[in-house]
Amino acid sequence: MRGIVAFYVTYLLCLILGIVCVVLVAHWNYTYRGGFAWDGSAKHFNWHPVFMVTGMVVLYGNAAVVYRIPLTWGHNKLPWKLLHAGLLLLSLILSVLGLCAVFDFHNKNHTPNLYSLHSWVGICTTALFTAQWVMGFTVFLLPCTPMAARAFIKPAHVWMGGIILVLSIVSCISGINEKLFFALKGNTNGTLPYSALPPEAITANSLGVIIVAFGLVVLKILSNQIWQRPEPGYDEGVYRPLAYDGS
Amino acid sequence: MRGIVAFYVTYLLCLILGIVCVVLVAHWNYTYRGGFAWDGSAKHFNWHPVFMVTGMVVLYGNAAVVYRIPLTWGHNKLPWKLLHAGLLLLSLILSVLGLCAVFDFHNKNHTPNLYSLHSWVGICTTALFTAQWVMGFTVFLLPCTPMAARAFIKPAHVWMGGIILVLSIVSCISGINEKLFFALKGNTNGTLPYSALPPEAITANSLGVIIVAFGLVVLKILSNQIWQRPEPGYDEGVYRPLAYDGS
Repeated sequence: MRGIVAFYVTYLLCLILGIVCVVLVAHWNYTYRGGFAWDGSAKHFNWHPVFMVTGMVVLYGNAAVVYRIPLTWGHNKLPWKLLHAGLLLLSLILSVLGLCAVFDFHNKNHTPNLYSLHSWVGICTTALFTAQWVMGFTVFLLPCTPMAARAFIKPAHVWMGGIILVLSIVSCISGINEKLFFALKGNTNGTLPYSALPPEAITANSLGVIIVAFGLVVLKILSNQIWQRPEPGYDEGVYRPLAYDGS
Repeated sequence: MRGIVAFYVTYLLCLILGIVCVVLVAHWNYTYRGGFAWDGSAKHFNWHPVFMVTGMVVLYGNAAVVYRIPLTWGHNKLPWKLLHAGLLLLSLILSVLGLCAVFDFHNKNHTPNLYSLHSWVGICTTALFTAQWVMGFTVFLLPCTPMAARAFIKPAHVWMGGIILVLSIVSCISGINEKLFFALKGNTNGTLPYSALPPEAITANSLGVIIVAFGLVVLKILSNQIWQRPEPGYDEGVYRPLAYDGS
């Protein structure tokens, strides 16, 4: 019972941090970066952080913890599998739209694509996520896949799921940092540079910190053994990606 | 036996990637950034990436996997605890020197400290690492600490250990990305901008990719249950920070 209360407190924190991430990234780009458009202008670029943070971090993290909600344990697993896959598909669609936003903006403005370390890590993360979704759909949702194949693939699916969230956070933090150096150069008409920490810098830095906090809460929920959906044979071949014997 | 061979192959990969990280970060700063000094110049700053990557990533990662080496399992644990703590102390000292390098450089050049998102995440990572080392030393090395306290703290120590490595990688990638935008602006004397991917950009971007690969290999070693040091009562309260039920 204590474990369930602790779960729901942590899950509530996860939901709140996720909502704060979405609100903050939208507020940053709407209030300080001029809002949104789909016309190749700077406003076109502004969809990139909004879609990536909402898709690759918030929706992705929420999809990852679906199986942990004790309320769902008494039911058939299939609807929750569909919810898991559906949320991740939405997350993937947003991520692809987020990539379209930045590619379109670069192409319209004759800026090269995929040169920064942020872009290298980010594109690899999205590619891994796509492969993970296709593999997950094929193995865990197509009824023709034998149970033996599911059991064989599951540890890799579980491990890769956590790693993709970590890589998404790496991409988001490097991207927000890069954008602030680009945008906040300071000039003669009174705009303050990043180093003077104007309100926009505080807002976007805080967004970065909250993305990290959200990621840590999701990883904490995923890591706690007593919050795992009880299943026959569950413990076979389960990996513990971050655990080490530090005693 | 197959598990042990697989471990040593993965461990060899970990060692090779770690060495490549140190060589690449030194090569980048020596060849492209003008080398090293401790005089407040740009060469003073160059110690920052070298010390942070060597300390917070490579030494830290190697210290984390010490208990996984099967060769050590037949022996008393204390020498390996001392090696674990010693490597992490060296890692912490290098990290503090790396912070001194950037603070000294900023102060000498009247640049504000701790304004970027990279610096916010980085300073929190070093603070967490310091707290983790002090807590680890107090709980697991001081002989007066009761076994019950060790068993109680261990899951948090294990979890935090993995999380600090993730945060170190987030800090390194955002820092390398930021430095390349600062350094590679391109100018009239023929220097190419970051967007043209000159050799320095390829070198430092590759360093970033190899840091991520090193981190993933370390997390993989830490996560694999069959590579854990066999210990009585080991499984009690162990956390699995990245695992989730994605079946």
